[in-house]
Amino acid sequence: MKAKGVLHHHPFCPHSRGARAILLEAGIEFELKKHNPWDRVEDFLIINPTGTVPVFILDGAAIVGVHSISEFISDYLPRSERIKSLLPKSWQSHAENRRIRDWYETKFANEVSDPIILEHVYRRQMPANLGGGAPETEILRQAMQNLKPHLNYLDYLLEKTGWLIDERVTFTDLIVAAQLSCLDYFNLINWQENERIKEWYARIKSRPSFQPLLTDRIPGVTPPSYYTQFDF
Amino acid sequence: MKAKGVLHHHPFCPHSRGARAILLEAGIEFELKKHNPWDRVEDFLIINPTGTVPVFILDGAAIVGVHSISEFISDYLPRSERIKSLLPKSWQSHAENRRIRDWYETKFANEVSDPIILEHVYRRQMPANLGGGAPETEILRQAMQNLKPHLNYLDYLLEKTGWLIDERVTFTDLIVAAQLSCLDYFNLINWQENERIKEWYARIKSRPSFQPLLTDRIPGVTPPSYYTQFDF
Repeated sequence: MKAKGVLHHHPFCPHSRGARAILLEAGIEFELKKHNPWDRVEDFLIINPTGTVPVFILDGAAIVGVHSISEFISDYLPRSERIKSLLPKSWQSHAENRRIRDWYETKFANEVSDPIILEHVYRRQMPANLGGGAPETEILRQAMQNLKPHLNYLDYLLEKTGWLIDERVTFTDLIVAAQLSCLDYFNLINWQENERIKEWYARIKSRPSFQPLLTDRIPGVTPPSYYTQFDF
Repeated sequence: MKAKGVLHHHPFCPHSRGARAILLEAGIEFELKKHNPWDRVEDFLIINPTGTVPVFILDGAAIVGVHSISEFISDYLPRSERIKSLLPKSWQSHAENRRIRDWYETKFANEVSDPIILEHVYRRQMPANLGGGAPETEILRQAMQNLKPHLNYLDYLLEKTGWLIDERVTFTDLIVAAQLSCLDYFNLINWQENERIKEWYARIKSRPSFQPLLTDRIPGVTPPSYYTQFDF
């Protein structure tokens, strides 16, 4: 497994960002290839019929979705001390870690991050015949309303140790923080009201694996000044 | 890990059935506890705030969802030859196996099995104030229309070896077959038109791990006569 991988991603897809962060954190070499989730590119659909990103290609195999990429890293990388230190400690922690990852990758994504990114990013770029156009304010309002209880839940999860599981960072912390980073680009998170989440996010932001995610820009949309700062 | 587990499930939840089949196949001892996904039971929501089944409880840990239960079995069971023979052979097969599992557990479930079970099973039993009542025929019609391309895709996946991956049964075959079994109870699959799927499903039906799933009944709804038969 020495070949260089290719990560098919969209720079503002909340799931792609998580995949990118954990691959960087794991020290796996890869190049990025941008894919618009709404483009029906036949070669891409053969690899992944759902048409979604992220897809990680390695040695001719396609690893589809952030769950699978995360499980792949846990299973198949030579278990260096470094990788081991990023995985949950016990099978019980692993189960809880997967539950939290699923919560953010499905429930949070369905209720908050996917609709927000669809309205704020994708629909601006999509052709009109595929649903492109101005953001639907009612969908955004609903997603923002859903964000509040989700942040309360995140705060609760972080209460015990300051991390999602055990007392150290895992790949799931990076995956969840990657979701938040997409919202933060649009200044949608009130950090003053969420002090514990802010501290956790600052610690993740300061990791070299996370910084590259914050360099992407949307022409015409400037993120808040603190977006890339560790101390904000 | 000698303790007996508890599987919180609903007998007609397509996901619970998959969990039940793979736990039986893996030879893990457990008892069943029925949970209605629409009941807001506080003790259950503490374990799994989404309120969904299946949840497998073992040694005080909660393993939520069929993905996590499947990964748990792969990771933490003593690797007997038997378990090894039920897992994909290589990391490439594992990646493809997870992609297929995700496809059925999310895309197929969203588009076909979850709405069908909601309308045919849950809404009959739910109190009216939670959405109970007669099935919405338009939702059922749409789900049945979605079923066709999904069966075509399943046929395509089975074409090479007669199994979903490699050339033998894996936990994912059981998970996918469990989804179909819920539809088959309502006689919704045209087996005559899907010969290859039928053969595959017959082989899975004949496994001792699968038979207990087919013993559950809904009062007043009789499954087709071939429902439990291996040769149909």
